[in-house]
Amino acid sequence: MSARTINPDYRYRVEVCFFPDQYPLYAAEMDIVVVIDVLRATSAMVTALAHGVERIIPVSSVEEARTYLGREGHIVAAERNGEVVEGFQYGNSPLAFQGPEIMGKTLVMTTTNGTRTIALARDAKRLVIGSFLNLTALSDWLVRQDGNILLLCAGWKGKFNLEDSTFAGAVMDRLLDSGRFGLEEDSSIAAQYLFHAARENIMGILKAAPRRRRIEQLRMLPDVKYCLTADTTGVIPVLRNGVLVPMAHETAA
Amino acid sequence: MSARTINPDYRYRVEVCFFPDQYPLYAAEMDIVVVIDVLRATSAMVTALAHGVERIIPVSSVEEARTYLGREGHIVAAERNGEVVEGFQYGNSPLAFQGPEIMGKTLVMTTTNGTRTIALARDAKRLVIGSFLNLTALSDWLVRQDGNILLLCAGWKGKFNLEDSTFAGAVMDRLLDSGRFGLEEDSSIAAQYLFHAARENIMGILKAAPRRRRIEQLRMLPDVKYCLTADTTGVIPVLRNGVLVPMAHETAA
Repeated sequence: MSARTINPDYRYRVEVCFFPDQYPLYAAEMDIVVVIDVLRATSAMVTALAHGVERIIPVSSVEEARTYLGREGHIVAAERNGEVVEGFQYGNSPLAFQGPEIMGKTLVMTTTNGTRTIALARDAKRLVIGSFLNLTALSDWLVRQDGNILLLCAGWKGKFNLEDSTFAGAVMDRLLDSGRFGLEEDSSIAAQYLFHAARENIMGILKAAPRRRRIEQLRMLPDVKYCLTADTTGVIPVLRNGVLVPMAHETAA
Repeated sequence: MSARTINPDYRYRVEVCFFPDQYPLYAAEMDIVVVIDVLRATSAMVTALAHGVERIIPVSSVEEARTYLGREGHIVAAERNGEVVEGFQYGNSPLAFQGPEIMGKTLVMTTTNGTRTIALARDAKRLVIGSFLNLTALSDWLVRQDGNILLLCAGWKGKFNLEDSTFAGAVMDRLLDSGRFGLEEDSSIAAQYLFHAARENIMGILKAAPRRRRIEQLRMLPDVKYCLTADTTGVIPVLRNGVLVPMAHETAA
């Protein structure tokens, strides 16, 4: 197995950061940050905007989310440790954000890893949201940008996770293919190897996952299958003044 | 490519931690910590003890190392950013620790990543030092232990590196093979994939490394080749009261 050959005359970098807490090590050199929390926060955000939610307010704490409960035009989602927090109707399952009742609403959302990662990187020049669901749309947009790109994995409670890093490898593969992008970090090389190992069958790499993960995934298997499906939408959530909105078509073009 | 099948009835865990700063996330569950800084601190430590250094005092700061300069029976090594610190005779090049002048000496050592990692994990029940140079001796000893094992990568200035994680994958492969060990972390799965990608040719994965790394490696190519050579010694450094000594044969048996 070998990694893709990189154009030695690349103009911009694309790098993978495995942990939100390491974001400060990369921040100064990066122009665009892609926040990735495949299971399930960023998949849920993409789904909600694709199904008519008007905007998403990511908040870091359950307490802050609670202040929005019952507010006109708002739906509120709170997840901790994979469960819907008591008192909330929504968690981070993307399957819950597909009905007509969410049309035109503002979604307020707090999750264990995803919204915390957004908060850490909110001062990036541009912050967008990635998931397998918008893989091609996102990659097609990224490849046309002039600037360095950081693929920022949310991980799981501060630890490395396979699905975020494999997804990052998938995006990276498409950007390197263009010849406009190169990389300088070992983590980026490792993500490439993971993606190449998994590309035939993205579910396969998760099936190789350890027992604890398999049990967790079995419990939410419909979510996992949904979140690992590529290219169900062209929506790219972008952070504007602390609020995630679908990138406008004219901007995306 | 697939990861090794894991015995579902394993007794102990072997896990990989990619970054020293994440050690606290694993510490409580682990009995034995293997500190890994292939390029070059742990390779240098193994080499020095294999060539007759009596003991190694790892210190965190250059200032502390400096207090040992000129002391009878001591040699002092200080490395920062890949260079020998001014005023010191030794850095972290293992090739410097092979001459007769080091026989019977106490080596005091501070390095950018390696000794800092030892300091972070010094309260582990057992702390040993790993490198390709003692891969088989270390693995043969580890596989007979009763307890959970953490393979703790020193990384490079807080970031992921390929050689430490690939080495961790190599050790893990041997422990999983025994059926006594299993794993629960995604990082451990990823290390396996990296090792399987690199096993045919350990130098190969580094040749795929990014430009910045290749330049750095070219500058110290004799060191890199030496550090990636497996099984040149049976010495396993073990931390006793803050000092690294070769594991006694009766203990190692």
